[in-house]
Amino acid sequence: MGVGDEIFELAARLFPICRSITGDGVRQTLDILSDHVALERHEVPSGTQVFDWTVPQEWNIRSASITGPDGHAVVDFADCNLHVVNYSLPFKGILPLNELKLHIHTLPGQPDVVPYRTSYYAPTWGFCMSCDRASELPDGLYQVEIDSDLKDGNLSYGEYLHRGQTEREFLLSAHICHPSLANDNCSGLALLAILARHIAARETRYSYRFLFAPGTIGAITWLARNEDRTHLIDHGLVLSCVGDAGSPSYKRSRRGDAFIDRAMAHVLGHEAGAKLLDFSPYGYDERQYCSPGFNLPVGMFQRSVHGTFPEYHTSADNLDFISHEHLADSFRILTDVIDVVEGDWTPLNLFPKCEPQLGRRGLYAALGGQKSQEVTSMSLLWVLNLADGKHSLLSIAQRSGLPFRQVAAAAAILSDHGLLGETSSPLMPSSAR
Amino acid sequence: MGVGDEIFELAARLFPICRSITGDGVRQTLDILSDHVALERHEVPSGTQVFDWTVPQEWNIRSASITGPDGHAVVDFADCNLHVVNYSLPFKGILPLNELKLHIHTLPGQPDVVPYRTSYYAPTWGFCMSCDRASELPDGLYQVEIDSDLKDGNLSYGEYLHRGQTEREFLLSAHICHPSLANDNCSGLALLAILARHIAARETRYSYRFLFAPGTIGAITWLARNEDRTHLIDHGLVLSCVGDAGSPSYKRSRRGDAFIDRAMAHVLGHEAGAKLLDFSPYGYDERQYCSPGFNLPVGMFQRSVHGTFPEYHTSADNLDFISHEHLADSFRILTDVIDVVEGDWTPLNLFPKCEPQLGRRGLYAALGGQKSQEVTSMSLLWVLNLADGKHSLLSIAQRSGLPFRQVAAAAAILSDHGLLGETSSPLMPSSAR
Amino acid sequence: MGVGDEIFELAARLFPICRSITGDGVRQTLDILSDHVALERHEVPSGTQVFDWTVPQEWNIRSASITGPDGHAVVDFADCNLHVVNYSLPFKGILPLNELKLHIHTLPGQPDVVPYRTSYYAPTWGFCMSCDRASELPDGLYQVEIDSDLKDGNLSYGEYLHRGQTEREFLLSAHICHPSLANDNCSGLALLAILARHIAARETRYSYRFLFAPGTIGAITWLARNEDRTHLIDHGLVLSCVGDAGSPSYKRSRRGDAFIDRAMAHVLGHEAGAKLLDFSPYGYDERQYCSPGFNLPVGMFQRSVHGTFPEYHTSADNLDFISHEHLADSFRILTDVIDVVEGDWTPLNLFPKCEPQLGRRGLYAALGGQKSQEVTSMSLLWVLNLADGKHSLLSIAQRSGLPFRQVAAAAAILSDHGLLGETSSPLMPSSAR
Repeated sequence: MGVGDEIFELAARLFPICRSITGDGVRQTLDILSDHVALERHEVPSGTQVFDWTVPQEWNIRSASITGPDGHAVVDFADCNLHVVNYSLPFKGILPLNELKLHIHTLPGQPDVVPYRTSYYAPTWGFCMSCDRASELPDGLYQVEIDSDLKDGNLSYGEYLHRGQTEREFLLSAHICHPSLANDNCSGLALLAILARHIAARETRYSYRFLFAPGTIGAITWLARNEDRTHLIDHGLVLSCVGDAGSPSYKRSRRGDAFIDRAMAHVLGHEAGAKLLDFSPYGYDERQYCSPGFNLPVGMFQRSVHGTFPEYHTSADNLDFISHEHLADSFRILTDVIDVVEGDWTPLNLFPKCEPQLGRRGLYAALGGQKSQEVTSMSLLWVLNLADGKHSLLSIAQRSGLPFRQVAAAAAILSDHGLLGETSSPLMPSSAR
Repeated sequence: MGVGDEIFELAARLFPICRSITGDGVRQTLDILSDHVALERHEVPSGTQVFDWTVPQEWNIRSASITGPDGHAVVDFADCNLHVVNYSLPFKGILPLNELKLHIHTLPGQPDVVPYRTSYYAPTWGFCMSCDRASELPDGLYQVEIDSDLKDGNLSYGEYLHRGQTEREFLLSAHICHPSLANDNCSGLALLAILARHIAARETRYSYRFLFAPGTIGAITWLARNEDRTHLIDHGLVLSCVGDAGSPSYKRSRRGDAFIDRAMAHVLGHEAGAKLLDFSPYGYDERQYCSPGFNLPVGMFQRSVHGTFPEYHTSADNLDFISHEHLADSFRILTDVIDVVEGDWTPLNLFPKCEPQLGRRGLYAALGGQKSQEVTSMSLLWVLNLADGKHSLLSIAQRSGLPFRQVAAAAAILSDHGLLGETSSPLMPSSAR
Repeated sequence: MGVGDEIFELAARLFPICRSITGDGVRQTLDILSDHVALERHEVPSGTQVFDWTVPQEWNIRSASITGPDGHAVVDFADCNLHVVNYSLPFKGILPLNELKLHIHTLPGQPDVVPYRTSYYAPTWGFCMSCDRASELPDGLYQVEIDSDLKDGNLSYGEYLHRGQTEREFLLSAHICHPSLANDNCSGLALLAILARHIAARETRYSYRFLFAPGTIGAITWLARNEDRTHLIDHGLVLSCVGDAGSPSYKRSRRGDAFIDRAMAHVLGHEAGAKLLDFSPYGYDERQYCSPGFNLPVGMFQRSVHGTFPEYHTSADNLDFISHEHLADSFRILTDVIDVVEGDWTPLNLFPKCEPQLGRRGLYAALGGQKSQEVTSMSLLWVLNLADGKHSLLSIAQRSGLPFRQVAAAAAILSDHGLLGETSSPLMPSSAR
C-alpha cells in the first residue's frame, strides 16, 4: 500500500466525525490519529485565559433534525453533520416556516450543496441545507430539535515531538476543528500523522513537533502554554487542503525570507504550476504563529488555495474531492522540504585556487556510473565554485538552478574525496535561519 | 459649484494674461490669485545674484503687430499673445518678406497652430504664427512694430505659508511664467490656489508652502533667498499640466524613494492608467529643487507628460484642452496625497502575541455598520499584524495593497479600542522621510 | 584594410595549424602572433606542479592516416587535423573494421561533419570522421598509422603586458589549444593580437595583459606562476567565438556586479539582440579565474554562446563561419568597453545648488556645433545632476540610459568650463571595482 493510500484511508476514517473547536469529536479524532503517532494529549479547561482569549465551553452534539409539516425529516444531522451550524446551542421547538428560515443557511450560488457554518464566538442555533432543498419547503409548522450542549469542559489537542540531535524545532501544524470536510482538513490531519510516523523512524538533526489543534483558539492555546519554547522553532509549516487536484502552493511566512520560505520556494520551483504567495494575515494558524509578538518562520502549504475553489466549506468537499495521488504528491513535497532542512550545510572548498583535477580522482569516470545518484559534472563544478564558506547547499541550489538533491549528492562525493570541508555546525548559521 | 468648476473658472481668468519670467503679467496673475489665497508677494531687483544666475531685466509689452503690403494686419498681439516671441526686444521697422521671415517661427508639423517661443537669455525679437498663415504671405514690404521694453525692474513671485502644528514643510510649486497656455500652466496655478484655500481652512501637522514663481529663475531665486530653510522641507511637489484628459503621472524625486515618492506611488497605484516615471534632470522646477546641492524630496505631478502631447507649447493648449472634470480629478489626487502625508503614523500593537479577540470587542459586529468608513476585516488584521513599530500606515498600505484610507480607518478604530499605541512622534521618523 | 580584414587574415593564418594543449602547434601560433604583438614567451616543463594539477607531457604529431582494404586513404591528418583525436597516442597496426570502429568518432546527428575530440587526461588513440564516411566503410583490414609522440617537454604560452600609468591590470585572455576551428578560437586569438597592437599604441591608465595560453591547464599554470600578482587585476575578459554572425553575449563574472560586469552590461545594452548571462562554472578559462580562491572580476565575451550552435566543435567551424564584419563588430565592442574602463571617473559638480547657467557659458550654443562629439543638453544636465561625488560616469550612463561616450563628452566639456572637479584618483574607488 502506497503512502497516498495510507493517507487517504486515514482521512476517510476521520471524515465522518463531527469535530468542532472543542468536544468529543476532537477526542475521537485524536484517538484515531494515535494509531499512527504516539500523541501527547492535552485537555485545557474552559475559562483558561490564553493571551487575549478565553478557552470556550465544550460543545457536544448527539442529534439534530428538522421535521416538516408532513412528518417527514427535512434534514437530519445523522445524514451529514454539516446540516447543523457548528457550535449550535441546543434547541427544541415548533416554528412556522418564516421563523425557521431565519435559522437556515444556504448557498444560493451553489444551490445543490450544503454550506459549512459556525457560530463559535456568538452562539446561536441554525441549520445548513442546499438551496434546492430549502426552496421546496412548504408552508406549515416545523418541528426542530438540536440535542447539543455547551458546558464547561476542556479544549483538546494533541502533539507529538520527535527528538532529533538538537533541540531546534521544525513545527508542523494542522487544524482539527472542521467536521466532515475532506480536503479541509481531514487531508492535512492524515498527512501529518503519516508524516510523523515516517519521521519517527528517522534520525534527524532537528526535532519535529507535530501539532493537531483546533484552528485559532487551539494555536493560541498552544502558544500561550509554550511561549518560552517558541524561540526554538527554526522552521514551521501549517498544512491544510493537501489532497485536491490543484497544483501545490506555498504562502510565505511574515518574514518572507526565512529558511523555510527559501526551501519551499526551491522545492516548488521544480514543480509545474506551483504557486508562491506572499504572507497575508488571513488564512489558517500561520496568523497566530506570525503575529508580530512571535513572528515565527512559519509558512503554509496547501494545494488549491482555501476560499478559491467552489467545494471549499461545502458538502462538496467530500472524499471524492481528494485523491491518493495528490495526497502522495503533497507528502513527497513535504519530505523534499524536510530533506532540504535536514541536508543543508555549508561546504568549504579545500582546493579553492583553480578547479581541482576531478579526472585524476576518478570523478569524471565516477559520473557515468552514478547517474542514479543524480550527480552531474555541473553539480560538482557548482559546489566547488560556490563552496567559499558563504553559500549553504540551498544557496548553491538556488543560484545554480539545480535540484537540492543533486547539489547535496555532489557535495557528499566531493567531501568523500577530501575536496570539501565543513564551514559551520550541522545546523545552519543563525543568519540563514 | 464643484471644485473642478472653481479651478476651471480661475484658470480661465488667468488665461488671457501675457505672462513672462518678469513683468506686469506676473503681477496681474498674482493679483487674481490673491482673491483666493493670502499671498505674500516678493519683488527681487534686476541684477540680484542668485547662485550662478542673475535676476534679469523686467520685460513688459503693450502691443505688437505685423502689417502686410496691403495694409491689413498679418498678426496682432492683441488677438493672441503667443504671436510675439516671449521676452522680445522692442522693434519698429519696415522689412521685405525674406528679412521678416528670419524673425517668424512656425511649426511645420502642425501647420494650423501658433507655436510658443521665448528668448529669455539671448534676447532678440520675433513673431510666431501658424505655418498656414506664414505660407500665404505675399512678397512685399511689411511694417513691424513691437512696443515692448526690457529694463531694470524686478522679478515678482508670490508664496503662501499655511502654518501647521510643526515647522516641517510640504512645498507645492507651480510656474507662473507662461502666457496664454491653459494646461501649461494656468491649470497648475489655479489648482494650487484653490488647494491653498482648502488647506488654509484645515488643521494640519505639516506646514504647507505654496509657491507661484516664474520657471527656473523664480525657483532659483526662491532657493537662494530661503537656502537656510530648505532643510525643513520634508515633502514637495511641482505641479504643471493638471487639467487635460491624460491619465495622472508622477515623476519621482531625484532620491527616488522619498516619502513623497512612496505616497504618490501608493495613491497613483489605485488610479487606472497612472504612470510613474523616474527622475530625470529635464522638466520643470524639480530640476532646481533636486539639484545635487539641495536634493530635496520634490517630485512632479502632471497628467499628460509635457512634451508628449501635440497641444504642448502651442495655441492649441487653450481652454478647450482642459476640463472641469480633470482639474477636479487632479485636485482629488493631491488631497489624497496630502491625506497620506497628514495621516501617516506608526502604530504599535499592544496585544502582539496572537491576534486579539476582535469579536469580543464588537469589532466584527462593528464592521457591518462601518462599511462607509471603509474598514474591513482585512484592514484590521493587516494593521494588527504589521503594527510592530517598524511599519508606518503607508508601509502597511503598500504591503497589504489596501488603500491608505482603509488602513488609516482601521488603525483609528483599533486605537479607539485600546489595541494600538503610537510608536513615534506625530511626524514620521526621520528614516522614513 | 579595415580592422575586420586584419583580424580575419590573421585568423586565416592560424587556422591550418594543429594546436593542442602542448607542442609545436602552440609554438607556431605564438610565432605568428608575434608578428603583431611583442609576446613574452614561456616554456613550463612537463611535471611542474601547478596547484592541484601537473603540467602534462608534450604532444607532437607529424602524420596520421587510415588506409582501407582497397589501399585508398580513408582519412588523412594532412587533409584536416580534426581527423585525429587531439593528444592521440602513437599507433601503427592493421585492424579489422569492427576493431577499428572502437577508435572512430562520428556525430550521428550531423552526418556530414567531422567532430573535434580530445583525450588530454586519459590518453588513447582515435580518429574522427563524418558519419557519412564511416558508414560506407567496407569490411576488411585497415592499416592505421598515427605518427605522434607524447614525451616530457614543455607547455608553451605567450603574454604581452602593456604598461599603463598604473600597475592595476585589465586581463584579456584567449585559449590557444584548439586546432582547425575558426570561431573557437582562431577568432579570439586573432582579435586579441590585433587589439594588443592597438592598445600598445595608446596611453592608458590601466596596464593591459594579453594572455595566449592553452585552455584550463594554461590558465592554471599562469595563475600558479603569477599568484602574487592577481590582486592587481581590476578587470578581465576571456574571449572566444568572436567571429560568427550571432549577436554579442557576455557572461558575468562570479561576482556578478564587478565593474567589468556593469561596463559590459552598459555597452551591450546599446547593442541589438545582445545577451547577458549569469556566471556559471562551465565554459572557458573564467572557470579558473573565478574559482573561489581567486574570484577575479573576469567575465567572458563571445558572440554565439559555445555549445549552442551546430558548427561548434566540428569541421563546420571553418573560415566560412566567421566574417570580417563580425570580427570588426567584436573588436569595436571591446574597444568600447576599454573606453569605459579608461574613461570612467567620478565628477563633482562645483555649482551644486540649482543648475549652473549653461547659456551664459555658451554651452547651449556650443551644443549645435558639437553634435559630432555627441554632447547633448540631456547629457550635460545628467552629469551636473549626478555629479555629487557618489556617481562615476558609468553610473551616470546607467541611470540616464545615455551611452557612456556621450556622458564622458559632456563631463569633459563641463570640466573644461570649470563646472566639474574630480572626486577621486584617476582609477575608480575600490568600492566600485
